[in-house]
Amino acid sequence: MKLIDRTNLADFILGTAILGTGGGGDPYVGRLMLEQELAKTGPIDLLEPSEVPNDLRAISVFSMGAPTVFSEKLPNADSTVTAVRRIEGQLGCEFNAIIPLEAGGLNATLPLVVAAKLGLPAVDADGMGRAFPEVQMTTFNIYGVKAAPLAAVDDHGNCVLFETDSAIRAERYSRPVCVQMGGISQMAAYPICGTEIRSFAVPRTVTLAIEIGRTVRVARTEKVDPGGALVEYFARSNPPRFSRILFDGKVRDVERNIVGGFTVGKLDLEAADSSGDHMTVSFQNEFCEARRNGCRVAVVPDLIMVLDRESGEPIMTEALKYGQRIMVLGVAAAQVMRSAQALAILGPRSFGLADPFQPLEEVHDSG
Amino acid sequence: MKLIDRTNLADFILGTAILGTGGGGDPYVGRLMLEQELAKTGPIDLLEPSEVPNDLRAISVFSMGAPTVFSEKLPNADSTVTAVRRIEGQLGCEFNAIIPLEAGGLNATLPLVVAAKLGLPAVDADGMGRAFPEVQMTTFNIYGVKAAPLAAVDDHGNCVLFETDSAIRAERYSRPVCVQMGGISQMAAYPICGTEIRSFAVPRTVTLAIEIGRTVRVARTEKVDPGGALVEYFARSNPPRFSRILFDGKVRDVERNIVGGFTVGKLDLEAADSSGDHMTVSFQNEFCEARRNGCRVAVVPDLIMVLDRESGEPIMTEALKYGQRIMVLGVAAAQVMRSAQALAILGPRSFGLADPFQPLEEVHDSG
Repeated sequence: MKLIDRTNLADFILGTAILGTGGGGDPYVGRLMLEQELAKTGPIDLLEPSEVPNDLRAISVFSMGAPTVFSEKLPNADSTVTAVRRIEGQLGCEFNAIIPLEAGGLNATLPLVVAAKLGLPAVDADGMGRAFPEVQMTTFNIYGVKAAPLAAVDDHGNCVLFETDSAIRAERYSRPVCVQMGGISQMAAYPICGTEIRSFAVPRTVTLAIEIGRTVRVARTEKVDPGGALVEYFARSNPPRFSRILFDGKVRDVERNIVGGFTVGKLDLEAADSSGDHMTVSFQNEFCEARRNGCRVAVVPDLIMVLDRESGEPIMTEALKYGQRIMVLGVAAAQVMRSAQALAILGPRSFGLADPFQPLEEVHDSG
Repeated sequence: MKLIDRTNLADFILGTAILGTGGGGDPYVGRLMLEQELAKTGPIDLLEPSEVPNDLRAISVFSMGAPTVFSEKLPNADSTVTAVRRIEGQLGCEFNAIIPLEAGGLNATLPLVVAAKLGLPAVDADGMGRAFPEVQMTTFNIYGVKAAPLAAVDDHGNCVLFETDSAIRAERYSRPVCVQMGGISQMAAYPICGTEIRSFAVPRTVTLAIEIGRTVRVARTEKVDPGGALVEYFARSNPPRFSRILFDGKVRDVERNIVGGFTVGKLDLEAADSSGDHMTVSFQNEFCEARRNGCRVAVVPDLIMVLDRESGEPIMTEALKYGQRIMVLGVAAAQVMRSAQALAILGPRSFGLADPFQPLEEVHDSG
């Protein structure tokens, strides 16, 4: 059986931060929360998603809010437990597993903290295969699992329960409540059974995070280029994924605002070499589009990672600063996230980007 | 037994429009809704509040939103029924009466429509004795009745359930959901028992509306001044209330905006005579402060009514126009709304007005 324990915790946290693709909050907050919980409860069981029983009843938990806020106002695991209990009360059932909604950022860690608190296993899978900013941007929703009932709980235990006919309406109605709750709210949503997990979840993304973190850690120890090590890792991961170093350069400018509960902005880079090339990477909580000299080279749902050039440490949008030496890495999203159905919900248009999705590997084959 | 039926419907609607003190939406929408329902169900029983049994279980219903929106997007009585059913499901009980939350505007009429739809009596009382813009501004909340659970339902039957520790938090969390629901949402809140109604509700406000409407109708028929007729009526109503014509003049300017789901602005008047006097009346959905030549002459929770000079027809904030000939009438609020406890929640400060409350009769005794 797979476990999350103190031996793989650091790798997992580093991996989730990289899979956070610029969003998802400060990973060290998640690390402290999870370390503390593991010290109390011991290892957390990870369920292999292809083997979960049909009648497994799992629930997703996450913090809603702008990552910029998460740095000042920490996710509240106890309120998250309240949200889970509220959904149980609503459905008249008990959940027997927690499934992450996101593979990146704090929202990849929080479900494990909640699983530990509740003495439940966590499913080694999620609904995004990365981090995304909105509730409806999940494979669960794309393939027909209802987001509702969805519970939002504040730091005082006040609960708002959303019973909506669609995930996008759950997003629209819950987002401004999150703003009123102080910019962060603790959520439970997407009650899901084993059959649905086997069909619709992005599998083995907790393992993916651990392996990404381990790859970077080993590269540091062996003093090899962490970007190159990651490209090699993705080529032999299960399943393999296309990836490519998209840029090597220096931060020239950062534009960043909090708009409607999101951290929105644009990163401007100039090449490390004397080519005069430049890149802009735009973000809405997470990085969503990279353009080299004006031409798009990567776009959501494919992953755009911004890492420190030397250490491979991911840089969150709120930590971007003038002069940082960084590399930009593009990684193909899981296939389940690239269907026409999926792209309608988490493709470029959902981020206000006009041109249709082009898979990373096609852009770079033709380029 | 008192009834609302087709003989007193028109008086009631006119009275609620006057008690709307500028807010509460177009009364004719309410009239049409109620007429239609009365045609189907026959008269609605009105319960005398001093005689309700201890174990009566009543619920309040209302539309949340800016009155400006109500003119374009009508209150949805079926969604309101859904909200009532949702609270019943939540509490595991059935309500046996509907109690209005407001005495003025559409929200004085909607509860009767819902009572008719559910085949329930309505209590001849309310929680405001007028209309107010926010959920916590009720005698129910002031004297300890919980607003929660509070249900908000949209036109599609989507429900958001608020389980909050205070009415003000229910207001803060539900207001932006209302905006997302299209600027109007159908609400049920403040489950209340007979004992609480006898102690905390503003009594006989359905009757008050009928009598105000009748007074203006009779004045029109008898071709006497409706303002004077109202001042006479209030002097002998049960209990009597101080009232005063505050201004007789012409609209010089209107400033009106929708801010955070409210209709907010200021009415500027010049005197009908050659005195050069002027008056400003500010509003947040309802009129909240009148100043004559810069000096305050009336302020919430006392009622400020703006009526057509000739017909006594109330003019809603959204219908105010340059050049209208109007009178401004001030009426003392019920005593239950003027305690220190009450003023902390619905006094001038809650409307951003600095000076403390001074009762209408004191201003005009000293003036």
